[in-house]
Amino acid sequence: MSEHLHKLIAFIEELEKLKKVHRQNQTLDSKRFENSAEHSWHVALMAVLMKDYFPNKTDLIKVVKMLLIHDVVEIDTGDTFLYDEKRISVALEEKKAAQRLFGLLPSPQKEECLNLWTEFEERITPEAQCAAAMDGLQPLINHVITRDDRDNSLGITKSQIIAKKQFIEDVSPKLWEIAKGLINKGVAKGLYEDS
Amino acid sequence: MSEHLHKLIAFIEELEKLKKVHRQNQTLDSKRFENSAEHSWHVALMAVLMKDYFPNKTDLIKVVKMLLIHDVVEIDTGDTFLYDEKRISVALEEKKAAQRLFGLLPSPQKEECLNLWTEFEERITPEAQCAAAMDGLQPLINHVITRDDRDNSLGITKSQIIAKKQFIEDVSPKLWEIAKGLINKGVAKGLYEDS
Repeated sequence: MSEHLHKLIAFIEELEKLKKVHRQNQTLDSKRFENSAEHSWHVALMAVLMKDYFPNKTDLIKVVKMLLIHDVVEIDTGDTFLYDEKRISVALEEKKAAQRLFGLLPSPQKEECLNLWTEFEERITPEAQCAAAMDGLQPLINHVITRDDRDNSLGITKSQIIAKKQFIEDVSPKLWEIAKGLINKGVAKGLYEDS
Repeated sequence: MSEHLHKLIAFIEELEKLKKVHRQNQTLDSKRFENSAEHSWHVALMAVLMKDYFPNKTDLIKVVKMLLIHDVVEIDTGDTFLYDEKRISVALEEKKAAQRLFGLLPSPQKEECLNLWTEFEERITPEAQCAAAMDGLQPLINHVITRDDRDNSLGITKSQIIAKKQFIEDVSPKLWEIAKGLINKGVAKGLYEDS
């Protein structure tokens, strides 16, 4: 086997570990915690389905690639809860993780993945913003259908959520309408405190 | 919310159920069974990474879309084990499931997904063959790293595996080299009977 293929396979083997990184979200089966691999599938497919709501000329394959790799760094760092105040200090650890993990890949896949991951983190390009919008919307959709009524053990407030998710409005006012509707459903269900 | 968005969200909510469809494969965490959502993520990302081994002019976004949706029908049918002899009779059930599930989508997403799923099932176009190659290769990679030595409770033989996977050679002799290497590793580890 060529060195190139050998490295690709080693990275694909490493990806297996993302299936054991758990998020704060739950799933429909026995209320287990969602893992970052199945979350990544959900958001990548959402991008395929929602591309009509992205700005014109947004490069769909780039958005999908970003979403497929955006959480790979969590193999080393674990998932950080969106409302955790330690989130900023995690950025440096995630950068190191990106270097180690994508560094397992051969060129040019290594550079491509590092660039896509950095672009996603910076949230400047239309593709990064659309990918972030999918990543911000999916947990809201998931919450309403998987959480029991009045399950707000983490004490999340409506204004906290709006502060974290309002960037979706810049990507697409229509997607932001959906997000607001889901947030209001969550408040009505007692999942978020109405503040 | 528009009727189009309303239907998209209903389908995205339905997708949540794929996270509770279990395969025969296992994962690294406590040897639980892999679900079809995390498997779909793994194969879609493999396609992004391995596109240099696909025939020239293969449309990558089409391959990735196929892999993101290829198992959605299992929400209704469940996963069928590759070596199960009832597999053929499942095809009709899967077709009904595709009609129901993708039928939740608005146009043109409904037609696009139905066409992509049918094309994947027919295995004729280069995109369908490349997607099938990823879907055939991933379980081999997964087996070797997640199964305990000599865990072949289902009595799978090397010749059964080769019969099911040899189509990978037509997509790419290099990918078939990898598959053969993984099958031999599996035999050495006692996961497949050497027949």
